Amino acid sequence: MEHQLLIYNTLNRRKERFEPLHAPHVGMYVCGPTVYGDPHLGHARPAITFDLVFRYLQHLGYKVRYVRNITDVGHLEHDADEGEDKIAKKARLEQLEPMEVAQYYTNRYHTAMEALNVLPPSIEPHASGHIIEQEQLVQEILNNGYAYVSEGSVYFDVAKYNQDHHYGKLSGRNLEDVLNTTRELDGQEEKRNPADFALWKKAQPEHIMRWPSPWSDGFPGWHCECTAMGRKYLGSHFDIHGGGMDLVFPHHECEIAQSVASQGDDMVRYWMHNNMITINGQKMGKSLGNFITLNQFFEGSHEKLTQAYSPMTIRFFILQAHYRSTVDFSNEALQAAEKGLTRLMDAIKGLEKIAPAAASSVDVKNLRTKCYEAMNDDLNTPIVIAHLFDGAKMINNILAGNDTISATDLEELKETFKLFCFDILGLKKGENGSNAEREAAFGKVVDMLLEERAKAKANKDWATSDKIRNELAALGFEVKDGKEGSSWKLNK
Amino acid sequence: MEHQLLIYNTLNRRKERFEPLHAPHVGMYVCGPTVYGDPHLGHARPAITFDLVFRYLQHLGYKVRYVRNITDVGHLEHDADEGEDKIAKKARLEQLEPMEVAQYYTNRYHTAMEALNVLPPSIEPHASGHIIEQEQLVQEILNNGYAYVSEGSVYFDVAKYNQDHHYGKLSGRNLEDVLNTTRELDGQEEKRNPADFALWKKAQPEHIMRWPSPWSDGFPGWHCECTAMGRKYLGSHFDIHGGGMDLVFPHHECEIAQSVASQGDDMVRYWMHNNMITINGQKMGKSLGNFITLNQFFEGSHEKLTQAYSPMTIRFFILQAHYRSTVDFSNEALQAAEKGLTRLMDAIKGLEKIAPAAASSVDVKNLRTKCYEAMNDDLNTPIVIAHLFDGAKMINNILAGNDTISATDLEELKETFKLFCFDILGLKKGENGSNAEREAAFGKVVDMLLEERAKAKANKDWATSDKIRNELAALGFEVKDGKEGSSWKLNK
Repeated sequence: MEHQLLIYNTLNRRKERFEPLHAPHVGMYVCGPTVYGDPHLGHARPAITFDLVFRYLQHLGYKVRYVRNITDVGHLEHDADEGEDKIAKKARLEQLEPMEVAQYYTNRYHTAMEALNVLPPSIEPHASGHIIEQEQLVQEILNNGYAYVSEGSVYFDVAKYNQDHHYGKLSGRNLEDVLNTTRELDGQEEKRNPADFALWKKAQPEHIMRWPSPWSDGFPGWHCECTAMGRKYLGSHFDIHGGGMDLVFPHHECEIAQSVASQGDDMVRYWMHNNMITINGQKMGKSLGNFITLNQFFEGSHEKLTQAYSPMTIRFFILQAHYRSTVDFSNEALQAAEKGLTRLMDAIKGLEKIAPAAASSVDVKNLRTKCYEAMNDDLNTPIVIAHLFDGAKMINNILAGNDTISATDLEELKETFKLFCFDILGLKKGENGSNAEREAAFGKVVDMLLEERAKAKANKDWATSDKIRNELAALGFEVKDGKEGSSWKLNK
Repeated sequence: MEHQLLIYNTLNRRKERFEPLHAPHVGMYVCGPTVYGDPHLGHARPAITFDLVFRYLQHLGYKVRYVRNITDVGHLEHDADEGEDKIAKKARLEQLEPMEVAQYYTNRYHTAMEALNVLPPSIEPHASGHIIEQEQLVQEILNNGYAYVSEGSVYFDVAKYNQDHHYGKLSGRNLEDVLNTTRELDGQEEKRNPADFALWKKAQPEHIMRWPSPWSDGFPGWHCECTAMGRKYLGSHFDIHGGGMDLVFPHHECEIAQSVASQGDDMVRYWMHNNMITINGQKMGKSLGNFITLNQFFEGSHEKLTQAYSPMTIRFFILQAHYRSTVDFSNEALQAAEKGLTRLMDAIKGLEKIAPAAASSVDVKNLRTKCYEAMNDDLNTPIVIAHLFDGAKMINNILAGNDTISATDLEELKETFKLFCFDILGLKKGENGSNAEREAAFGKVVDMLLEERAKAKANKDWATSDKIRNELAALGFEVKDGKEGSSWKLNK
């Protein structure tokens, strides 16, 4: 695990050498979807960003336990207020059991993530499945004096906490800023301070999702789940906590406060945040008519889209920007990404046609080194992709006879593309990547068998060579014997 | 919703008219997988059986809420004893977090179910996510005097219960039978009666999965989860509870006892059970060497399999037997199913080539009626399939010019096939089928190559045998040599 991986730590506002607490193990927690609607671009970006981290750390040799939660309860509509559980609300509107809604959208999310070639996390815990752990967290914070019970709900005492610690250290705010930007909302009278946030909410009579607790029948505050589940599955100190930049405040700030108030220190060593997505320069929102779901992208079934964009185009487009830069989606930009991806994939196909020469006029090692350098520089995928395009040019120049490559270098070039394009960036060839790979492997086995048949023929072992030929024919293989060996086709 | 659907109720040992409690809503609970191993045939049969029920009830116009759980904790290794949590055990062996193991196998299960075209249930609750609800159930049973605390564990008092109610009414046993067949196992001293079963188990120090409770840090007994989650998502009385016949005793018997002991009556109106699966006449078991996973069927990569079988062949084969009959898997039987399915699908393709005539010499309405009659007779799919084969003959006769069909009847024939073949039986045409066929053909080629390798070995031609083995390994094939030949798996 010799590497120089730097990652940007939001907490310290600088790139830092990545050094896990318990190498070779790495613990990573990423905020997952709230499952009350179809997955959209805002879900795709963090999923792809941390999929990249997951893949790269594993490539470096770490054993990564990657936890990404499903928020199926407790996400308040307005953070700093008397919220209503978003999911329960949707369920009431639809006259459905909230868990049925949550299950439906969880399944839709999984399907979309699979299409984007996002690997499943090691553990995908549900907030509703960890009520006990969240209640334990709330009790610890109460015991330590950083929370108070009010009308059956429990609130985090931000002012008290801020006397002993700095509330706002992740987002770079101070309590005064927070107070000035907190909206006055209904039910604030339960709180000592408008900045206080709910750790446990007493359920109103109409509230469907509720559990018993020492304080009331109710549900946990949104911020509790990540602290409780992160600790349960990764331990009280772990390496990486990720999410979208919009979660820095208040969500992750509150997580740090909960962690410090319960166990005395923060659980997280590196806080990582991906930047936001805009569509034609605008924030995505249902009221703006530019709220496009991933399925609508894949099908081209939204009026703002001039065509369908494959999941790999979306993935490639997102990776063409550094994760800490904003990304603006437009038809033009996506079409450019689609073309670029095709160019890259065509070059990779070309790799198979290259005949090695005695010596190389190209520098493959340098290409590989540069790709690593870019990845190690806070996962700079746009630079990696730029280098891969240089590699594509290299391939095309060799094919055009303008450059030469040795057999060893050709192997390394193939490996470099496989590693960075497929294993690390997570791109897939064709629609059915895995199928194609299987077919390729099986095809080689047919070649091997035909080789055995050629050997049998050379040894005048006609029994064997006929048997192989007849059995292949019975299976639907059409074998053609030519001067330079046999070729075949499977008619199925 | 006019229909005459009869379903066999295990409780009353007879077919009964299906009348839901709250039409048009139907609540159905089915025992799902314990996720500590790869999915196998024992998972496929109940999943396909109740997928059929789910599909048919929806076709009849019901709004079905179908709950199928994930058992990720609390499944004791031996039912009536001091058990050890199977998952926790596996995790300790593998040095993994139990939830990481559970997540891995849950994902594998979902992939296999999708391949079998089993629809996802409406809600898929995790046992570990419903500890509070299970503790509430245990407390109610304690309050009602049908359970006792012993050494931090809680046991159901079967003898006490049997004085007031009949323990054994589902399985047709009485307490004396039960006692005579209960094995004496370690730790029985905690129980008043060997037939008593655990509602809550105190965790041993080495036990990883544990939660706080009024009685001890521990975990719920296996039977609790279905009672607690069924009630939570379907209400205290619901229509159908399903599962494999092996669950009748003790699992479902204990569920009834828990329900009666907590709320005063059984929650379930219709108890449905699918029969068991054997392989070449033997019970499937790891020790018998006939434990074949679904993936091994799909890939043909188990030494007992002479070829790969597509998911649709497996599904069709299972549906060719009535769900209450046993099914014996063998290569011959599966190959016959494969041929039958191809014949059926070819006939359906033929439908598109039919030119309608002025009048019909065939009786389509009768075909459709007979299919409905078979489905309504306790979901008699083998009869439905027999009628569909009659329909296939009808198509072939029309195509051969021996019969005629009117335009209206042709439409009805197409609809009948679409409805019964695809919507209700859940078969799929196309892509997957042909892919599976290609995989099957390629799989045979791997077998042929391994045969050549065996020959080379027999001839002490180590160069050839090593070369084949190494090249296969490089392509991603994992070859295992056994006494009865070699088996393989393609890791792509």
